[in-house]
Amino acid sequence: MTGIDQPLDSGRRARALTVAKIARMAGVSAPTVSRVINGQAGVKLETRERVEAVLREHGYRRPGGSGAVAILELVFHALESLWALEIIRGVERVAREHDLAVVLTEMQGRLTPGRAWTEQVLTRRPTGVIAVFSELTVAQQSQLATRAIPLVVVDPTGEPLHQTPSVGATNWNGGLAATRHLLDLGHRRIAMVSGPTEWPCCRARLDGFRAAMDAAGVPVDPELVRVSTLYVEGGLADGRELLRLPSLPTAIVTANDLQALGVYEAARQAGRRIPDDLSVVGFDDLSFSRWSGPPMTTVRQPLEQMGATAARMIVDLAAGRTPEQLRVELATRLVVRESTAPPRVR
Amino acid sequence: MTGIDQPLDSGRRARALTVAKIARMAGVSAPTVSRVINGQAGVKLETRERVEAVLREHGYRRPGGSGAVAILELVFHALESLWALEIIRGVERVAREHDLAVVLTEMQGRLTPGRAWTEQVLTRRPTGVIAVFSELTVAQQSQLATRAIPLVVVDPTGEPLHQTPSVGATNWNGGLAATRHLLDLGHRRIAMVSGPTEWPCCRARLDGFRAAMDAAGVPVDPELVRVSTLYVEGGLADGRELLRLPSLPTAIVTANDLQALGVYEAARQAGRRIPDDLSVVGFDDLSFSRWSGPPMTTVRQPLEQMGATAARMIVDLAAGRTPEQLRVELATRLVVRESTAPPRVR
Repeated sequence: MTGIDQPLDSGRRARALTVAKIARMAGVSAPTVSRVINGQAGVKLETRERVEAVLREHGYRRPGGSGAVAILELVFHALESLWALEIIRGVERVAREHDLAVVLTEMQGRLTPGRAWTEQVLTRRPTGVIAVFSELTVAQQSQLATRAIPLVVVDPTGEPLHQTPSVGATNWNGGLAATRHLLDLGHRRIAMVSGPTEWPCCRARLDGFRAAMDAAGVPVDPELVRVSTLYVEGGLADGRELLRLPSLPTAIVTANDLQALGVYEAARQAGRRIPDDLSVVGFDDLSFSRWSGPPMTTVRQPLEQMGATAARMIVDLAAGRTPEQLRVELATRLVVRESTAPPRVR
Repeated sequence: MTGIDQPLDSGRRARALTVAKIARMAGVSAPTVSRVINGQAGVKLETRERVEAVLREHGYRRPGGSGAVAILELVFHALESLWALEIIRGVERVAREHDLAVVLTEMQGRLTPGRAWTEQVLTRRPTGVIAVFSELTVAQQSQLATRAIPLVVVDPTGEPLHQTPSVGATNWNGGLAATRHLLDLGHRRIAMVSGPTEWPCCRARLDGFRAAMDAAGVPVDPELVRVSTLYVEGGLADGRELLRLPSLPTAIVTANDLQALGVYEAARQAGRRIPDDLSVVGFDDLSFSRWSGPPMTTVRQPLEQMGATAARMIVDLAAGRTPEQLRVELATRLVVRESTAPPRVR
C-alpha cells in the first residue's frame, strides 16, 4: 500500500509562500491556486489556464513526489493488437511489484489525449503516466510536470521534447537484420512494405532496410518501397500490388507482423507459396506469428520488457531518482522460422 | 469527475449505531470497525477477520453506494490472448461514458485473487469489480458486498453464487452450430478438441457438439473427443494424435481459435491440407482468425460486447438499480470462411 495513507499536503509550509506569490502573479486567490495545483474541480477554465501559465512560466513543481494515490496511468492510442497486450503485461508486472494500480485508457485511435483525459488524470494524481504511441501536447506535458507527475513515452510518434524519457526498440537495427537475412539467402529483388514514415519507429525500420541494401551494393527499386498502415489490410493491399508487378519481388520485408499476415493472404490469393515463391519477414514477433502458416520469420521486439522498463522509469522518477538514460532502446532480434528461404533459381 | 469530491462518510449518522453494535459483538472498538469497513490499514489480521465475520453474519452494507473514487476494477486470470483485449475494449468504452477509471489487474494465470489484491481493492473503494474467468472466494465476495461494491463475473469458471451477476455467451448454441455446419457439409467422422470441462463455458460447447451429433443420429466416437488446454499447444498436441488415428476424422471442432490454430499446425506437419483433407472450426473469432491460412470458420463470441455489458451492469448496480437479468448470455454466431468444406469422397 505505497503512499496511500501519506498526507496530501506534505511540504505545506515550503509551498505556502510560493502559492501566495503565484496567486498574486495570476491575480487570483491562494485557494484557487491550490485547487489548480491539486487538480480539483470548481475553477473556471480561463482562470485555470491563467494559473497554469504562471506555474509553467516559473517552473513550479508540486512538492510531495509521487502523489498520494498509488496509481500508474497507462494510455494507449488504440487497443487492437497483441502488441498492446504485451506492453500492458510488462507494465502490470512492475506495477504489481510496487503496489501500483494500473489505470488503462484507450484513446480510440487518437494520438493526442483530449482535455477530459487530462483533467481526469490530474484529479487522480497518479504516480506517473506512460503514454504508448501517443503524443501529449506541450501544455499537457507541462501540466504533468507542474504537479511532479513523471511522464514516459513508449514508441514516441513525434520527436519528444528533450526532457521526456522514452522507451523504444532498436528499430533501425531490426530493419537492417531482416534485410541482411534476405540478402544472405541470395535475394536481390527485395520489397519493403513500410509503416507511416512520419513515425520515427517506422522511419527507422525503412532506413535499416535501405542501409542493408546499400551495404550489399544492391540498388533499391523505388517501385518496391511501399508505405502503408500498420494493419493486415495495409499489407494485403500492398502485397497484392507488389505481386502484380511485371518484375516480381522474391522477398518482402514488412514493418510489422500484421502487415506480414496481409502479405501472406495476398500471396495465397495470387497462388504463390511462402517461402517457395516468396519470402516474407515480419516485425514484432506477436504470439500468433510463430503459429501462422508457415511460421513467420520476424524481428522480435521485446514488448513486454519495453512496458516493464517504462514502468520502472516511472518508479525511479517518482522517487526522485534520475534514470541513467532518458532514451532507452531495447534490442531487437531476428527470429528465423519458415517464411524465408533462398529464392528459386530461374 | 463522478463522485471524487463526495465525502467518504455520507450517511455517517445512520451508520453510527450500527458500527457501535458491531464493535460490541466483535469485542473491538468502534474505530477498529470503521477501519475495517473503510478498508484502512492498521488492523491485525485476526481482528479484521473477526469483524468481517460479524459484518457478514449481519448482512452489513456500507452506506454511500458507489464509493468515493470513480474506479472500475477489472481483473483477469491472465492477459495472453486477443480474447482479453477485446473484453478490455468493451469495458473501457462503457467506463469512458461514465468517467470511470479502469484499473486492470492480471493474476498471472491464477483463478482466485490473493489477499494482497483484495486489500488493495478495498483500499481503492471502486465503483465495482469485474472478474474475468476468475473465481472469488466466498469471503472475498462478502467483503465486497459488505462495502456495497458490486461484482460482475465474465465467463465464470465455477458455479457462481446465486446472487453474483455474470455475463457469458451462448456457448452451448455455439458448439451446436459449429457441429451442425459440419454435419450439413456431409461430415460424419467429426472430432472435438474441448477445453477443460470443469469450466462451464467449455462444458457447454462440448455438450452442444454432442447434442448436434445426437440430433443427426451420428454416434460420437469416444476416441475423437479430446480435452485439452485452451492454447495453441493444446490444439497442436491433440491435433497430432487425432491425425495419427487409423480411422481419421474428416473434421475437427475446437473450443477456441487458439486450439484451432494448433490443429492447423498439426495438419501442416502431417501434410494434410485444410479444408481439402480436413475441416476445422474455431471458437471466439479473434481478429487474426480471418487472416489465418486459410481464413478460419469459427463461432463468433461478442467479446467486446460482453465486456461492455459487464461494465453496464456495474454502473446499474452501483446506482442501486437491479439489472433485469443476473445471468446474461449474449448470442454466438457461426462465421463460415474457408477452413470448412465437404469431406472428400473416398
